[in-house]
Amino acid sequence: MATERPRIGADKLTDFAIRVLRKVGVPEEDAQITARILVATDLRGVDSHGVAHLALYVRGIKEGLINVKPEMKVFSQAPSTATMDGDRGLGFVIGYRAMMEAMHQAEKAGAGFIAVRNSTHFGAGAGYAMMALERDMIGIAMTNTGVGVVAPGSTKGAVGTNPLAVAVPAGKKPPFVLDMAISVVAEGKLEIAQREGTSIPEGWAIDKEGKPITDPTKRLRGEVSLLPLGGTPTLGSYKGFGLGVLLEILCGVLSGSSASILKERTPGIRSVDHFFGALRIDSFLPVENFTKSMDEMIEAFEALPKLPGVKKIYVAGGYEAEIEKDRKANGIPLNSKVIEELQELAKEVGIEYDL
Amino acid sequence: MATERPRIGADKLTDFAIRVLRKVGVPEEDAQITARILVATDLRGVDSHGVAHLALYVRGIKEGLINVKPEMKVFSQAPSTATMDGDRGLGFVIGYRAMMEAMHQAEKAGAGFIAVRNSTHFGAGAGYAMMALERDMIGIAMTNTGVGVVAPGSTKGAVGTNPLAVAVPAGKKPPFVLDMAISVVAEGKLEIAQREGTSIPEGWAIDKEGKPITDPTKRLRGEVSLLPLGGTPTLGSYKGFGLGVLLEILCGVLSGSSASILKERTPGIRSVDHFFGALRIDSFLPVENFTKSMDEMIEAFEALPKLPGVKKIYVAGGYEAEIEKDRKANGIPLNSKVIEELQELAKEVGIEYDL
Repeated sequence: MATERPRIGADKLTDFAIRVLRKVGVPEEDAQITARILVATDLRGVDSHGVAHLALYVRGIKEGLINVKPEMKVFSQAPSTATMDGDRGLGFVIGYRAMMEAMHQAEKAGAGFIAVRNSTHFGAGAGYAMMALERDMIGIAMTNTGVGVVAPGSTKGAVGTNPLAVAVPAGKKPPFVLDMAISVVAEGKLEIAQREGTSIPEGWAIDKEGKPITDPTKRLRGEVSLLPLGGTPTLGSYKGFGLGVLLEILCGVLSGSSASILKERTPGIRSVDHFFGALRIDSFLPVENFTKSMDEMIEAFEALPKLPGVKKIYVAGGYEAEIEKDRKANGIPLNSKVIEELQELAKEVGIEYDL
Repeated sequence: MATERPRIGADKLTDFAIRVLRKVGVPEEDAQITARILVATDLRGVDSHGVAHLALYVRGIKEGLINVKPEMKVFSQAPSTATMDGDRGLGFVIGYRAMMEAMHQAEKAGAGFIAVRNSTHFGAGAGYAMMALERDMIGIAMTNTGVGVVAPGSTKGAVGTNPLAVAVPAGKKPPFVLDMAISVVAEGKLEIAQREGTSIPEGWAIDKEGKPITDPTKRLRGEVSLLPLGGTPTLGSYKGFGLGVLLEILCGVLSGSSASILKERTPGIRSVDHFFGALRIDSFLPVENFTKSMDEMIEAFEALPKLPGVKKIYVAGGYEAEIEKDRKANGIPLNSKVIEELQELAKEVGIEYDL
């Protein structure tokens, strides 16, 4: 946890993001929803998907790729399922409303599942899955992305990195929060290596001939595809690819949009699609039994024998919960490049920079 | 597709399995359900989970580990969720009935999800997920298993290989059927290498010191744990582990049983737990739109550029569909060891061996 970087309070950062979004025409409530999800992502240490991306969304709005006054429509033909058309609104607002709808269904029917078409980048999936926690539900959020991950046996992108997020409440322990791309690594890791001028380990990505690459700058020249989780067929890459296809189906096909690989063929603005779900725990068993059982499981994992040098066995979400505790108390550290970008952004949209 | 092994017709093999199960007290309908699922698994080429395991179930029944006259109970508190107590019946029968219940809920509510406790080995998960196909639903089946997969940073089994199966109908193309353990490889692959006296690739399993092993016989001495999909933290093993924990939650915790790691602490008979789900496609969009979109996606994958030596890009379930076509036409090849075992089994339970 870098101590040299200036720390900004979450409220102050949220307020800044709201003012920026307001200035480019985002309605007040939508600006609040978006800013809150962005800052919640920063609080959990997922710096790649928080306010550092704010300028991207502003650019998307200015270029007309993101519709700030969308007419979102929900089509529900059964008590626990629905589809939604996001009308290319801000992915954050679409994701928030779709997840609310899934939870509303789960409140009544036990489960709720919404497939969403015509959306835009929604940040980190965990933000939506975690909305279920305070309602004692299991939350699920998925999205497709542009194709960047190869099929085993091929060298061209076939599916997106397609992150899958699931959040499950525990008792005294932090919630289980899994938020994983189906590739060996998320694209952001190559971006970071490229910026920092370091090489990447073999097994993350391949070039057009299918050879492993370690030079992340090749990505800029479009010569790189990511490998699905597993990496090689011997080590299970068909599993990572299979999960990638599953998310293409749930997000793209089931929502009435299409798999990402087909969108590549049509020129023009590319939308993304999502899939959200909620399961109400007390429609299975009493919540206190469930959370107690979760705590016992997590404690058993933490008590496992450790390899030399390993301080703690983490369950998904446990490390992020530690960062969140620190950042809630001491503020969010922003790196100098992000601060510069936010200063420029403030100037560009015409608000005071006060962070 | 081995041509030297004798080929047995699926009907004949089903009939044989029914007669064996009948002889050890399995009620007629339950024997039929179990035999059908076992042979369907063989038809798809998953030889490790078909009739080759029949003797195991017979032994389980004889030893009183499997209850042939279980009182299964379904507890449903909402239109689209339920839990089920399997009363330690045959996993196949429990799985079949639970999946039927999930589909029954999906028929009415759009989605149906059942968490099952107190079950026993149910064979391959795909058999249950695929029940959804003819009803134009997406089928989901999961199970926990004994702990055999390590957490990143540890050397002791923390979660099961916990297979996850999802089946999705297509149109002209074979259905998408993903059936994957969350470990790099399923335990069966070590069993096969051990039997055949071959070594295993580095990256599948580690010993008690966390060192990679290539000698599969170490497994017999209980010195081996499987690695989660991803293998190492650099290549994403926390993702495979995260999926493993997710299945522990959905099967073990949500059903009112517990995570496998806690069961290890209590002596006595160990049950397993499952999680089944069904999503009715036409509660999202018209079935014909969906299956057409599935076909287009699969065709786009098949048209991807291939690495030298790769004949076809397979989508999950595509290879198994080819085997199934062959085996339905030409019979199921059984290897000599399995034939010997089935002959012994026939003698043991007192039926004629006629395969």
